[in-house]
Amino acid sequence: MHWTVLVLASGLLVVTVALDNGLMRTPPMGWLAWERFRCNTDCEHDPKNCISENLFTDMADRLAEDGWRELGYVYISIDDCWASMQRDEQGRLQADPKRFPRGIHRLSRYMHDRGLKLGIYGDMGTHTCGGYPGTPLDKIEVDAQTFADWEVDMLKFDGCYSNTSEQEQGYPRMSKALNATGRPIGYSCSWPAYQGGLPPQVNYSLLAKICNLWRNYNDIQDSWDSVLKIVDWFFDNQEVLIAAAGPGRWNDPDMLIIGDFGLSMEQSRSQMALWAIMAAPLFMSNDLRTINSGARSILQNKMAISINQDPLGLQGRRLLKEKSGIEVFWRPLSNEASALLFFSRRNDMPYRYQTSLSKLNYTMGIYKVSDVFSGKSVTLKDSSSFVVSVNPTGVVMWYISAPAKPRPLTHQFSRGGRFEEFGRGDLANAIPPVFL
Amino acid sequence: MHWTVLVLASGLLVVTVALDNGLMRTPPMGWLAWERFRCNTDCEHDPKNCISENLFTDMADRLAEDGWRELGYVYISIDDCWASMQRDEQGRLQADPKRFPRGIHRLSRYMHDRGLKLGIYGDMGTHTCGGYPGTPLDKIEVDAQTFADWEVDMLKFDGCYSNTSEQEQGYPRMSKALNATGRPIGYSCSWPAYQGGLPPQVNYSLLAKICNLWRNYNDIQDSWDSVLKIVDWFFDNQEVLIAAAGPGRWNDPDMLIIGDFGLSMEQSRSQMALWAIMAAPLFMSNDLRTINSGARSILQNKMAISINQDPLGLQGRRLLKEKSGIEVFWRPLSNEASALLFFSRRNDMPYRYQTSLSKLNYTMGIYKVSDVFSGKSVTLKDSSSFVVSVNPTGVVMWYISAPAKPRPLTHQFSRGGRFEEFGRGDLANAIPPVFL
Repeated sequence: MHWTVLVLASGLLVVTVALDNGLMRTPPMGWLAWERFRCNTDCEHDPKNCISENLFTDMADRLAEDGWRELGYVYISIDDCWASMQRDEQGRLQADPKRFPRGIHRLSRYMHDRGLKLGIYGDMGTHTCGGYPGTPLDKIEVDAQTFADWEVDMLKFDGCYSNTSEQEQGYPRMSKALNATGRPIGYSCSWPAYQGGLPPQVNYSLLAKICNLWRNYNDIQDSWDSVLKIVDWFFDNQEVLIAAAGPGRWNDPDMLIIGDFGLSMEQSRSQMALWAIMAAPLFMSNDLRTINSGARSILQNKMAISINQDPLGLQGRRLLKEKSGIEVFWRPLSNEASALLFFSRRNDMPYRYQTSLSKLNYTMGIYKVSDVFSGKSVTLKDSSSFVVSVNPTGVVMWYISAPAKPRPLTHQFSRGGRFEEFGRGDLANAIPPVFL
Repeated sequence: MHWTVLVLASGLLVVTVALDNGLMRTPPMGWLAWERFRCNTDCEHDPKNCISENLFTDMADRLAEDGWRELGYVYISIDDCWASMQRDEQGRLQADPKRFPRGIHRLSRYMHDRGLKLGIYGDMGTHTCGGYPGTPLDKIEVDAQTFADWEVDMLKFDGCYSNTSEQEQGYPRMSKALNATGRPIGYSCSWPAYQGGLPPQVNYSLLAKICNLWRNYNDIQDSWDSVLKIVDWFFDNQEVLIAAAGPGRWNDPDMLIIGDFGLSMEQSRSQMALWAIMAAPLFMSNDLRTINSGARSILQNKMAISINQDPLGLQGRRLLKEKSGIEVFWRPLSNEASALLFFSRRNDMPYRYQTSLSKLNYTMGIYKVSDVFSGKSVTLKDSSSFVVSVNPTGVVMWYISAPAKPRPLTHQFSRGGRFEEFGRGDLANAIPPVFL
């Protein structure tokens, strides 16, 4: 199958319309508190790590000063456990007065002053998952207005403590209420994760009309196992999910845990690469004050980010699951480019995977191939056999430019069928076996 | 229970006698090819990584030149897939002539010239696990003599392709045959791993008489899951295993995979610490030519190594499995010292575990506590409550010196019951909560 056919099947023919707030035309990027800091409210004993305004201003300073913002990481998002246990006398949510003494509005101004955006968390139900005040149906309008009054830029709307019918009313109603405030507020819906993530329970056409992104599946934990479970679920269900995604409407496989405690460097590159293939929101949940340089350079990889942020917004797919444990993924990009990803599920040693571009649906001749993590480039002919060495739990990710235009017959590439010029050891992991 | 009682229960009363070759009075340390390089025999396409004499001389150079040898990492061990498919005309094993053109004897001299020792691999059975020639019963004497003629220093004797009764004859017979050569050859027996690792199938008293170390359980793979399965098995069966171990006779939970692809830095510290508690052989299986500095510094941690190599040779134990996911381990050391290890099985965020030394059987007053990975020290009174912050999948490991001798009454520690002096933020992870 020629790859443009896959492009069409992937999304161009899907007529779903995204939520009409003009936001998040590419997957949102930023930082989200939950995975790394959870519901730690013990500011007395753990002042640097508890959910408090200091945590968010600390992270905002890092986003603004350490090169993150310029790369697109602009959302800084509060998760659960920020609120006071009591609404105020007007029935409005308010922040915990001890941990957020200056309130959420001051926090959003702090973000805006630094070119960042503030996200907040609510819950469609009587209580949040952590037991804080939720947003039952009759509070949706007042809470939406409160968030707008605070000049918040995004809302993650969880679904603990509500039933199916309440969610069915509440999620669309919050979308309408946010729009009605007149403030553009990105809307992240946890709804499908509470419905099992798949049709017929989940109506992705409806979701695309009311939400900018949605959590389809379980929360990520700080482990490679958790990443693998998420990856498998998303690609096992890729036909449904690819059709749902596009500019302004994104599947959300949950936060990046790169820089935390559970992933090796290989696994960190794998999460970054797979999230780029999935056109997933890139919300880091880590401690930007102490992150090591290896994790930082993965999260700040410009080519991986540009693949993730491609303006076409087509979610990629798994092409192959080999018996060897190698899996191949592919995402079509603008300008006739694409991303190709080789991923190893093995736990032994680097695996030398032999294939050719034509076996992976590239049939237009000669391509320029750039390795995302090494930065090296080579040209490869579609029919040339090559070997990539993929580390256990690791990836090799390529950005593949548009096929070269036909060249005059005098050019070397047109003489005969030999392609010794391609990949002579320049590209770390793409080596035609004839040169080994 | 006072901890000296545990010491007695742990091993001093066990009368098992170790194999009488005088070797491995502390757990052997070095490098073993298997986990990282497996049965890669493709020297044509992968010359740097195939099982060949170059791989072993490369690693020997690194052991000798990069500070490993001086720390005790002196064994460099060949695993499966080294042999020619044919025995020689005298019926002796011989190395693959293409991959080991200069033979094993030249390789052992190469090691000895550099102050290292060479380990080799054989299999009690018709074939090795990789399908190379094994050592059936009638070849035991000739193979033992061949290894001695080659001046080999250790034999790992696997058990593929033999039945229970052949193993029962073969493992003791190889021990006798090695001793009969007159050359001291460390003897690593895979036998118990083929018997399920536990009595009554396994006779640990017999093993201690015939082997220096033995593989009790499954092969390690390059994943945290694999490390956890091994750790759980060894500590779930600690009563049996602790009694079996001692100078010259060691349980072997398999290789260190630190520096490979599957472990985070936290997990790498955890494997090093848990292997030290277990008095386990420290055979790295990694690529010492390219190992990163983080992994190297964990493997070269002098305090962890000195705990592992303690001359008493008492294997440590798990003291506690808390509902929080914190587990506490302890190993008695010479000079009335001990090692204490806090390990987190959590996958969320650092956990603040509160306890006191007296809750962990330390009842002799004031102790000096040194953090193995930070190098910092404090003194702690047995009854003082403290908090350690343990990262997900990570450890905090302490070396605890002998209790302080009683001091004259004028000393500050004798006045009243307040212990503000202890741990005032000096020891990264041991902070009496009063100071937080």
